[in-house]
Amino acid sequence: MIYLDNAATTRPDEQCFELAKRYILDDYYNPSALYAEGYNLHLAIKRAREQLLSHIAGENFELIFTSCGTESDNHALFCGGRRGNVVTTEGEHSAVFSAANELKQRGIEVRFAPLCPDGSVDADKLLSLVDEKTSLVSVIHVNNETGAVNDVNAIAAGVKSINRHALVHSDGVQAFGKIPFRLSRNIDLYSISAHKIGGMKGTGALIKRRDLVLRPYVFGGGQEGGLRSGTENVFGIMMFALAAEKRYKNMRENFARVSSLNELCRRRLDAGLFDVISPDNGCPYILTVAARGVRGETILHEADDAGLVIGTGSACSSNSKKRYSRVILACGVDEDTADGILRLSFGPENTQEEIASAAKILNDIVRNRREIMS
Amino acid sequence: MIYLDNAATTRPDEQCFELAKRYILDDYYNPSALYAEGYNLHLAIKRAREQLLSHIAGENFELIFTSCGTESDNHALFCGGRRGNVVTTEGEHSAVFSAANELKQRGIEVRFAPLCPDGSVDADKLLSLVDEKTSLVSVIHVNNETGAVNDVNAIAAGVKSINRHALVHSDGVQAFGKIPFRLSRNIDLYSISAHKIGGMKGTGALIKRRDLVLRPYVFGGGQEGGLRSGTENVFGIMMFALAAEKRYKNMRENFARVSSLNELCRRRLDAGLFDVISPDNGCPYILTVAARGVRGETILHEADDAGLVIGTGSACSSNSKKRYSRVILACGVDEDTADGILRLSFGPENTQEEIASAAKILNDIVRNRREIMS
Repeated sequence: MIYLDNAATTRPDEQCFELAKRYILDDYYNPSALYAEGYNLHLAIKRAREQLLSHIAGENFELIFTSCGTESDNHALFCGGRRGNVVTTEGEHSAVFSAANELKQRGIEVRFAPLCPDGSVDADKLLSLVDEKTSLVSVIHVNNETGAVNDVNAIAAGVKSINRHALVHSDGVQAFGKIPFRLSRNIDLYSISAHKIGGMKGTGALIKRRDLVLRPYVFGGGQEGGLRSGTENVFGIMMFALAAEKRYKNMRENFARVSSLNELCRRRLDAGLFDVISPDNGCPYILTVAARGVRGETILHEADDAGLVIGTGSACSSNSKKRYSRVILACGVDEDTADGILRLSFGPENTQEEIASAAKILNDIVRNRREIMS
Repeated sequence: MIYLDNAATTRPDEQCFELAKRYILDDYYNPSALYAEGYNLHLAIKRAREQLLSHIAGENFELIFTSCGTESDNHALFCGGRRGNVVTTEGEHSAVFSAANELKQRGIEVRFAPLCPDGSVDADKLLSLVDEKTSLVSVIHVNNETGAVNDVNAIAAGVKSINRHALVHSDGVQAFGKIPFRLSRNIDLYSISAHKIGGMKGTGALIKRRDLVLRPYVFGGGQEGGLRSGTENVFGIMMFALAAEKRYKNMRENFARVSSLNELCRRRLDAGLFDVISPDNGCPYILTVAARGVRGETILHEADDAGLVIGTGSACSSNSKKRYSRVILACGVDEDTADGILRLSFGPENTQEEIASAAKILNDIVRNRREIMS
């Protein structure tokens, strides 16, 4: 089976699992317990925290473990956007988009910046929405439906030059462990997730500027410095740290490898059948194309039968009743094109042979379908 | 090593892990994905949900998977207690207690009912606090520091007879899988957790009356029927369902076994050295005692060195700077007694031999310490 839906979730890394599984049956204690076995886990979590942080941020940042990227985004939006207006984009993952809409329900004015055709935000228009009453700006780092990269450090600098009190958050779930990046001092909050890079579902983190006073979103026993209560998911946290370490150690090599898979896929997909939606200079881990005249969902199921697993966009939006992706439409794509959207997302484990086979399977399906229909 | 801190967390069940580990490296897909592999996981989660629910509730209830008991409690408090006043007890776990205090910050009146000496709530006094403006009543089912059992079904009936619109929530984290119980129609919300019964940290659930309209607490892709977004923690959910199935299958046998361990422990602990705080008719999984004249924390560390792992109260409250347990003091215990508090918590895996050794270790430590001091 060829798995090209790595932006939805990744197979947990087997080597990391071999190392981390001791936290299931051996080191299973409660890290808040006072005895040595518990305290040692508290220290192990501290090391995992520092290690994860070191990949993308300096000492002026800290990291709070959460249960997922969605929770991290919710924490940032609900605790960062408490007054005035909130500025975000039409290209956000639903974790930010739905939270922003909830803020609107609560009486906060929410302003959505439009997208460029590749899915990146129109940065000038975004900045024109920021004013002295803006409490939070949230911009996705790598668009999860097209792979377009927003220069969040530059946007953050622009925001601060307009209103230095506005907080800047970025959803970095599709960026962390995949593209070279370090947080500038202008970013206040940054969300990451474990299961997009070989870790486990059920673990994420919110990175925050150390001197930012943030309210907790989950209240209780005071874990995570009081910012995120609940018994720490030790196994998930250890898997996260190990998976990230591996990704960052091989960052350059993975990036080159995945870039060449992406290029190969673009070359092998029949240009007469597919339009490329993703930008040329986007994150190579995501390649979104639109089949002409055939529904993406139809292709997805036929591909699955042929042993190829791909997506039609964000897995998270499959729970929505809407037929077309909100983000893809915001790219200015017409409904016919949106109907044929396929998202292929790669990982360092994918091979050239898999990509060549995948392109052949997709070409054959679309060619066949079009023949049947004509 | 003798592990008697099962109320803080349990060792994940090895048999269940053997069954569930396929959800790490084999069935690792995103349950929201449209292809068969993803949809099959969606169905597996649905079965797990129904199975878990069947142990304690009828068809008029539904279950939302969350990241932990704390999140479930927060969801219930923040989404159930949105106006008027909220009534709770002085015996709540910090997940409810801290959330209640946060509600107070937000302008909701919060009323705390006092405890009986065993840690159970004074039900008459609690009901006297309920009025026509009460939006939520939250009462812990099994007190996590003493094991006292609140008759939450009876309390819920009392609440509804005063105000049928008031929602009733109970934190069932220390009850689920341990004591025979079914949710009556008067309970609206009930929190449970996986890692207290042989499942994984990072998985909990909020059980709710099916026809109760509840706001989400985590917003995003619309997982869990829109009530809890974020990619489902499939492995954690499967471990939860399997661990609960095993606990409920052996409920009667486990209860008898743990009761006899509890009784043996009470008999073997030297009555001249220890006062029993837990009630006789409490949940047998928890036995809280107070050593006379020796600090609980000192005993805990010496016991750890001798190969015995116990707690001094809620592991979650170890993050608090306060010296004495808020719940233990609310039982009317003086500070000297509170200073010597030890919580021994059992599991079905514990043996009579372990308990006999544990009692001997504890007797020796306290006897020695007292000799040194005198």
